[in-house]
Amino acid sequence: MLKKIKPSVLSIIWAAILLPAMSKAQDHYTAEQRRAWLDKAEASKPALIETEKRPVRLVKLEADPSAFQGWKTVPAGDMESLYSRSFKQQSGTVVDFGEHLTGYFTFTIKSIRNFSDAPLRFKLTFGEVPAELATPFDPYPGGLSRAWLQDETVTITELPATFTLPRRVAFRYLKIDLLGSSGGFDFVISDMKFKAVSSVSTQPEPLQPGTSALISKIDATGLATLKECMQTVYEDGPKRDRRLWIGDLYLESLANTYSFKNHQLTKRCLYILAALAQQDGFLYASTFETPQLHAQEGQSFLFEYALLYNVALKEYLMATSDRETALDLWPVARRQMDNIARHLDSKGLFQPESAQKEGWWLFVDWRDGLDKQASLQGIMIYTMKETIELARKLGKEQEVATLPPLISKMTAAARTSLYDAKSGLFLSGQSRQVSYASQSWMVLSGVASKAQAQKAMKALATSKNAVKPGTPYLTHYYVAALIQSGLHQEARALVENYWGGMVNKGADTFWEAYDPDNDKLSPYNFFPVNSYCHAWSCTPVYFIRKYPDIFR
Amino acid sequence: MLKKIKPSVLSIIWAAILLPAMSKAQDHYTAEQRRAWLDKAEASKPALIETEKRPVRLVKLEADPSAFQGWKTVPAGDMESLYSRSFKQQSGTVVDFGEHLTGYFTFTIKSIRNFSDAPLRFKLTFGEVPAELATPFDPYPGGLSRAWLQDETVTITELPATFTLPRRVAFRYLKIDLLGSSGGFDFVISDMKFKAVSSVSTQPEPLQPGTSALISKIDATGLATLKECMQTVYEDGPKRDRRLWIGDLYLESLANTYSFKNHQLTKRCLYILAALAQQDGFLYASTFETPQLHAQEGQSFLFEYALLYNVALKEYLMATSDRETALDLWPVARRQMDNIARHLDSKGLFQPESAQKEGWWLFVDWRDGLDKQASLQGIMIYTMKETIELARKLGKEQEVATLPPLISKMTAAARTSLYDAKSGLFLSGQSRQVSYASQSWMVLSGVASKAQAQKAMKALATSKNAVKPGTPYLTHYYVAALIQSGLHQEARALVENYWGGMVNKGADTFWEAYDPDNDKLSPYNFFPVNSYCHAWSCTPVYFIRKYPDIFR
Repeated sequence: MLKKIKPSVLSIIWAAILLPAMSKAQDHYTAEQRRAWLDKAEASKPALIETEKRPVRLVKLEADPSAFQGWKTVPAGDMESLYSRSFKQQSGTVVDFGEHLTGYFTFTIKSIRNFSDAPLRFKLTFGEVPAELATPFDPYPGGLSRAWLQDETVTITELPATFTLPRRVAFRYLKIDLLGSSGGFDFVISDMKFKAVSSVSTQPEPLQPGTSALISKIDATGLATLKECMQTVYEDGPKRDRRLWIGDLYLESLANTYSFKNHQLTKRCLYILAALAQQDGFLYASTFETPQLHAQEGQSFLFEYALLYNVALKEYLMATSDRETALDLWPVARRQMDNIARHLDSKGLFQPESAQKEGWWLFVDWRDGLDKQASLQGIMIYTMKETIELARKLGKEQEVATLPPLISKMTAAARTSLYDAKSGLFLSGQSRQVSYASQSWMVLSGVASKAQAQKAMKALATSKNAVKPGTPYLTHYYVAALIQSGLHQEARALVENYWGGMVNKGADTFWEAYDPDNDKLSPYNFFPVNSYCHAWSCTPVYFIRKYPDIFR
Repeated sequence: MLKKIKPSVLSIIWAAILLPAMSKAQDHYTAEQRRAWLDKAEASKPALIETEKRPVRLVKLEADPSAFQGWKTVPAGDMESLYSRSFKQQSGTVVDFGEHLTGYFTFTIKSIRNFSDAPLRFKLTFGEVPAELATPFDPYPGGLSRAWLQDETVTITELPATFTLPRRVAFRYLKIDLLGSSGGFDFVISDMKFKAVSSVSTQPEPLQPGTSALISKIDATGLATLKECMQTVYEDGPKRDRRLWIGDLYLESLANTYSFKNHQLTKRCLYILAALAQQDGFLYASTFETPQLHAQEGQSFLFEYALLYNVALKEYLMATSDRETALDLWPVARRQMDNIARHLDSKGLFQPESAQKEGWWLFVDWRDGLDKQASLQGIMIYTMKETIELARKLGKEQEVATLPPLISKMTAAARTSLYDAKSGLFLSGQSRQVSYASQSWMVLSGVASKAQAQKAMKALATSKNAVKPGTPYLTHYYVAALIQSGLHQEARALVENYWGGMVNKGADTFWEAYDPDNDKLSPYNFFPVNSYCHAWSCTPVYFIRKYPDIFR
């Protein structure tokens, strides 16, 4: 997920420096709290499981208008045919590791004629999808750093050499170009291996017998996605961003609860976010682990992600019964609610312009032109309800006593101002925009009655101007809303069409952005820099395993 | 120096494997000899002196038809102006370290606005001369490996970062291009340093008072060249080839004797070459130190270099009086003489075609079309005389008793067949070619009387078709021949014009190839891959310091 930055902030302050300073200022939490949270985050840090992988075949890239993004791979020989022949005539070879992997690449080069008398120069390009290897990266039109793209130039000075690329890569396919060699000797690439890393150490339960092939494939692809993103935090994408975002954490932890059950990782991430919260107690949307744990401080406050933290904490408690952690972090969840009333009008309707004027970032989805008022209204009500539920389980109801009347007021305001009884659709903002986002959040928040929910969800299908989801992230909430509306067949059809669409287009892992009508959709103006293994896209695992009667 | 390769040989045999095997076969030396030589080579291995260097200024590249290769640098600010400002607006900056350096580059990058949220991508291009940074490397037209060129692409994943390029580089100028960054943060390159390495640990004597500014500058440039090439062997060039060649060793050790006096390094190199000699006892022309000591086995036998080993050994003995080493290596020198009679005709004239048919490489100089018969005739006579001199000092005259009659016969043959009394020039081959090479070697060998020598050397100046030297390597022998002919002013003028010409064109170290009329001359079809700090070009140090009355 891209981040918006407040360019004014100059904030190179490490947590280690920050914490003692905070204890003196008006920190919402005590220094002792933060230090203990950080300690608990570190104590929950998983060991990475390392698995040695080897490529399974050579492939050739072929242009094919019917293939995803116009490129496919076709088998082009076994590895022995690469290893046994001079590499000089094999520049441009594409190696297929057979699955999406995250970790460290090593290759071995040996002379087969004479000693080497000159260095070798290689370009290694790692791709998650075939088109990534077939699309020139330069001149680079993308909106994110060119350095995210995984092409590395390597000079090998002496042979024999076993070289490990220091950079962690995420990929399935590797293209090897020979950029420099000498006539004085000849050589082979005699071996390749890959140290794959993930903190997943368990196997999920098998699916129920009779689950369809497509659903099984969607589940497997979601599991692969989740496993790749589960490192020492829930990363958003192992190729790009590689950081902990609250929104991804929430969806990943849902899927984890129904599959790998690595709850320690969820605990770690909840503690990291708490320990690194803003001084006013509200949460940063994302954090980094290196060079030491720190929040992405320059970034705008991402309102809805801070709210969703509470839902993630509640779900953690439900999954683990770990009351101690939930009680420990309760002050953080409690604090996030203090923002709810901040930008409401007198009727209780959220005012996006007011929030944005304060510098808040309202995300909801990657989709230009999406009006976010109704979605935020829904997210606020939904997260308040979940927070009350969490408080109830912890015996802290009195601390959120202001929320129930706020829920009532905001629900009433939404029903009065956002609902169009005639069309049965919820409308957002001054333009009275119809969108999948608005309907989904009005349903999930309970603003819509069950009958209204069904009507709204069905009306979407015939509403030509409805703004569609741009990401699997919003599509997750859309599926959840369909299920909550009792539209189980529609939910199943959506998963089969949307995530199944990716599977049918050859996905090994689910993609950050997916528009069935536009393979090259990119929030960053250049599709190769998209992440093709992205945390927020793994949630079919959650749906399929939580609702086996719907998805089979 | 480029190497010619016998492509038929498949010879991945390390010394460690080779030596035991050799002891069983018909090795000219015993396994014990080779092992002891290798041990002595290792025992003489110098520790590298590491010196921390920092850049001295920023420069700008400017096209200038009057500058060497069309490019010069002009000052463009101090380092603080780089370090104190965002690097984003400084991509393409060229940093000047003020002198030629060999070693390892390190730079430090720090964020100045927000934490880094994306990797950075840099291209670092190291150049010995300005045009190297101004000439696109791709598409690469050169005849040697593209990988010799010193451009490296570097991905920095996290900040702050202190990154050391693993590759050893040789350069004065560094160009830094920023290929990828993110709008989410800003950064500075806050420091750069360089670990310069050389095995030179001593200071040479100052030149005699009254030495001219130009001669002083030529000497200083030669010393810098020599120092840079003196690593754990005498390297031919620290940027390119980076290996021990007999021809370079010989000239470097001459210059070393009159300057740094690091005789241990000469000893080490003489032992390495002996220990790694061919099974028939003749010497390989070049050796590598890594991954372990080994000869460049696939290369053609370079006849004259094997002969020059003897001269290098004799000079070592003269400089050090180390009889023990000279006696230990005498069998190697003795053996090299066994090739002399191999390709002579009945009159005693060397037959290059016959030698080349056997696969021998006759080098003499990089100059297309040079006929090498007369040069080789001279080199053979010269090295026989030097070998007899060495034998005499070691009490081994009886072992070379066949040489004096051979010298007489070959000298007579040369005088009869190669000398043209009318022109006073020595002619080479069937085309009766006039060249600087032929005259120089006929003089150095003593084939020419002193009167003939002077006549020949002077006649060259008016001989329009005389093939000129293409390298400082041959020019060294030309200077030596002028001195031997008593043409001291001409020798001085040559040094001032040729090496002084490089100095006047801005050389920090002397170049591998230099043609005053063609700045872009390259034996490899692409001048940026030339070595601009090359061992065989350092010998003005020897001349200036050995003959202070001539060079002052």
